[in-house]
Formats: sequence, structure tokens, C-alpha cells
Amino acid sequence: MILLRSHIGSALRSARISQGRTLRDVAKSARVSLGYLSEVERGQKEASSELLNAICSALEISLGEVLLRVTAQVRTHEAPTLTVVDDAA
Amino acid sequence: MILLRSHIGSALRSARISQGRTLRDVAKSARVSLGYLSEVERGQKEASSELLNAICSALEISLGEVLLRVTAQVRTHEAPTLTVVDDAA
Repeated sequence: MILLRSHIGSALRSARISQGRTLRDVAKSARVSLGYLSEVERGQKEASSELLNAICSALEISLGEVLLRVTAQVRTHEAPTLTVVDDAA
Repeated sequence: MILLRSHIGSALRSARISQGRTLRDVAKSARVSLGYLSEVERGQKEASSELLNAICSALEISLGEVLLRVTAQVRTHEAPTLTVVDDAA
């Protein structure tokens, strides 16, 4: 099952890692607990819209940028699986 | 402030209205309470990822389609306001 929170968490984590920042640093900047941010990144907790904005601000990315990545990921997962047809059968 | 839940709610509501369906019908089909669906549509409640999927299924739209609309809306709201420069001044 495709879960929105998993894809949001993954996008936030990618952004943080690409900036070479620690969970502790981003959590402090966003004023959320390290445990909360870690759970959000791992898709174990739904981030409230307000805290999602705070995390985006801490990462200096817009919500729209995060959603672009999330939408692309979700649509890739939704794409129908190609079936290999063996003509020789 | 741009709140993700408001844009998701708005997209779900638009999809339901465009199908000419009632809150009661979609809530029943998604197995959520009418009050819950109403609050989600109005951006007053964060839908869990699981219930968001259930609502999308009830509306026969994919999560990816909802996210496409949401992303477009959020990015429009984030776009910098154009300033009109009066050359004659």
C-alpha cells in the first residue's frame, strides 16, 4: 500500500542527507523533538501540516518542492507493472 | 500559512463535487464517518495516510492524482507575488 507519510518522510530525509545535516540539527531548527523528526522521516508518524511546514523551513525548502518529489514518487509506485509477454510460448 | 491538509481537503472536495456525490455516499464507501470526511474536506483534520487512501478509493481517483492537484495549488500559493511597476511614475 502506498502511504503518503512514507513518501513525505523519505523526501524530507533525502533533503536533509543531501545537505549533510544531522537529525539533531534539523530537529532543533524546526523546534521539534529529535524522536518526532526521526519517526516522520521513517514514515512511522504523520507530520501535522504545521510541523511539516516547520521542518521544510528548517531545511530551507518549500512545501511545494517536497510535494513535487512526493508526487513523482507516488505516481511511479502507482504506475501499472509491465507484463512481459513471452511470444515464444 | 500554507497548510497541506487544507489543500488535500480542497482537492478531495472538488473531486467529490465534480462527481455529484454526497458526503454521506463517499463517507460510507470509504468506511469513515461523515463528520470525519467533512472535517478533512474543510482542512480541519489531518487525514491519516490510510484513511486518505480509503477516501481516494471511494472517489475512484488515485493518490497521485490528488497530489498532482495539491502540488499545483501549493506551488501557486508559494509563487512570489508580481509587483506592478508603473513606468510612468
